[in-house]
Amino acid sequence: MKTISENTCFGGVQGVFSHASEATGTEMTFGLFLPMEAQEGPVPVLWVLSGLTCTHENAMTKAGAQRWAAEQGIALVFPDTSPRGEGVADDESFDMGQGAGFYLNATKDPWGHYQMWDYVAEELPALLEGQFAIDEARQSITGHSMGGHGALTMAMRLPGRYRSVSAFAPICHPTQSEWGRRQFTAYLGEDEAAWARHDATLLMTKTGFDGPLLIDTGTADQFGDKLGTEAFARAMAERRQPGTLRLQKGYDHSYFFVSSFMEDHVDFHAQALWS
Amino acid sequence: MKTISENTCFGGVQGVFSHASEATGTEMTFGLFLPMEAQEGPVPVLWVLSGLTCTHENAMTKAGAQRWAAEQGIALVFPDTSPRGEGVADDESFDMGQGAGFYLNATKDPWGHYQMWDYVAEELPALLEGQFAIDEARQSITGHSMGGHGALTMAMRLPGRYRSVSAFAPICHPTQSEWGRRQFTAYLGEDEAAWARHDATLLMTKTGFDGPLLIDTGTADQFGDKLGTEAFARAMAERRQPGTLRLQKGYDHSYFFVSSFMEDHVDFHAQALWS
Repeated sequence: MKTISENTCFGGVQGVFSHASEATGTEMTFGLFLPMEAQEGPVPVLWVLSGLTCTHENAMTKAGAQRWAAEQGIALVFPDTSPRGEGVADDESFDMGQGAGFYLNATKDPWGHYQMWDYVAEELPALLEGQFAIDEARQSITGHSMGGHGALTMAMRLPGRYRSVSAFAPICHPTQSEWGRRQFTAYLGEDEAAWARHDATLLMTKTGFDGPLLIDTGTADQFGDKLGTEAFARAMAERRQPGTLRLQKGYDHSYFFVSSFMEDHVDFHAQALWS
Repeated sequence: MKTISENTCFGGVQGVFSHASEATGTEMTFGLFLPMEAQEGPVPVLWVLSGLTCTHENAMTKAGAQRWAAEQGIALVFPDTSPRGEGVADDESFDMGQGAGFYLNATKDPWGHYQMWDYVAEELPALLEGQFAIDEARQSITGHSMGGHGALTMAMRLPGRYRSVSAFAPICHPTQSEWGRRQFTAYLGEDEAAWARHDATLLMTKTGFDGPLLIDTGTADQFGDKLGTEAFARAMAERRQPGTLRLQKGYDHSYFFVSSFMEDHVDFHAQALWS
């Protein structure tokens, strides 16, 4: 593993590291914030999954999460959103290919490197546990947009792994969205049965999440018609899923929205992680 | 004036605007955060001047200031750091030309567009006062690196204008620094007498600042040898200038450093602005 940078930040350290990933067959880069408390022993960790076009860097520099993670004594992991580099398939549009891995394991050509489910759910946690003062028994997960999709699907499909889940303007129903159908067709093929495991609304109907859940989405989200918030809300209500879905007046899809509610989300996870 | 974007942020609005500047003879872009309270009437304003290579955008997206400004009911202005565009002189190095206006009025060719002192100290305040709910009687100023240089020199040379001044890792003694001598020579000419008005250490010795002053600089600042912190500290002490200079252990020159202490700085200014 290579250390790209380490910056003191809110009394802890914001690091950026890269390593050769077996899952993706590429060099992968991630950000890791360790609070001061990590010098004394393992700390709980909050996974922060990012959205379309993002690298490991966007949430790390714009979401303002370190302030609250430092206060709560929690680590933050910022994975990349896809494999990258020469030889990695890409697409001209911003919502497919590099920067748009959709947190799944692609089964179709030419997307063989796109194994972001395995990378985020298996390989990176194992790597972190071995190298850093992180307590694998205390993990939670959040994400923005496509990263919200990743957080919700991982939380529901890996029961017992995450103590709490939250999302900012998540893609909730990709099997019925422009942000999903084209990408799932490319990555997973035409068989829509294979898509269902990556649709938070369908997973909510089928299994739900055994723990606290928080979602914030802005009423002025410019991509609101692609998110499927209505379908997810209905599925939550039908299931009687404990949780909170907030529609935030006037907020859009940007990091100005994400940062505005980051304190709430980190505090929400801290309550689950420290209990 | 053109509205480039407006995003709801911490209950207020983060806007980006552009306008034809008389001072620079170019189109200039700036960010303006207005807290919720600005809907009711004029609010105090904190100027946030940025460093080398930055546009209006860096501090606006990475410094995390809106959270604290919203809490204190204070507006934030994020000006650009130089004129830009075709026909505007530039230099190959990152520390001269576009992105490196040094908050002065250039007197030498080919830097005629570089009138950032007049732009930030005169033209932009007048423009804001006419268009937004900003109380010109309650202004304070801060900045990072080259922007800290701008904040300190403007505060000392415009007595009565700013109620308080602060800076993050400011360039304090540019007449004796790699970050200053080459740029002043280009923009102002060989006569070093013309440089003195743009050197915070010399201004501290000569006039000081009649109000509260706060500076944070990291002990691990990778550009520490260019800042002249020692000379400024001595000048502050010799003058008996009321103020606080903090050397923050382990912090470097990045926005991870700036954001770590932004809460302190906004609260510091709020105390002066609301008293």
